Amino acid sequence: MKAKIEVFLKPEVLDPQGETIKRALHTLGYDTIREVRQGKVFYIELDEKDAGKVIEEIARKVLANPVIEDFRWETEK
Amino acid sequence: MKAKIEVFLKPEVLDPQGETIKRALHTLGYDTIREVRQGKVFYIELDEKDAGKVIEEIARKVLANPVIEDFRWETEK
Repeated sequence: MKAKIEVFLKPEVLDPQGETIKRALHTLGYDTIREVRQGKVFYIELDEKDAGKVIEEIARKVLANPVIEDFRWETEK
Repeated sequence: MKAKIEVFLKPEVLDPQGETIKRALHTLGYDTIREVRQGKVFYIELDEKDAGKVIEEIARKVLANPVIEDFRWETEK
């Protein structure tokens, strides 16, 4: 089965990379952009067995840094 | 309004980073994982005016490399 895990900075954590992108977009004339924050997304294919448990675990322990990041996931099909 | 833009490698493009994560997960015992591919996600806040056009343009011209990447986007609220 397929799953998608999104990992993103907690709202209270500064995102200098997003800030830089926002400034670049303003420089290019896209001045309707108010905020940009960047995250990561992982597209995973895995066996059905215990899939929910496996996804939760790898997101929490491997893919996200729980000090500064949150995650959400969904399955496809 | 809020929008989310996902940028991901085209299916025919190798993803060594995803391969590395997959191998790391196997080493940790998560051997039900068959494939991992990594992408980027941008959370954007922007003015309503021409939002769809602006999102399409910045995704195509700035956030994604159209030679090797595709993107999809959706708005929230």
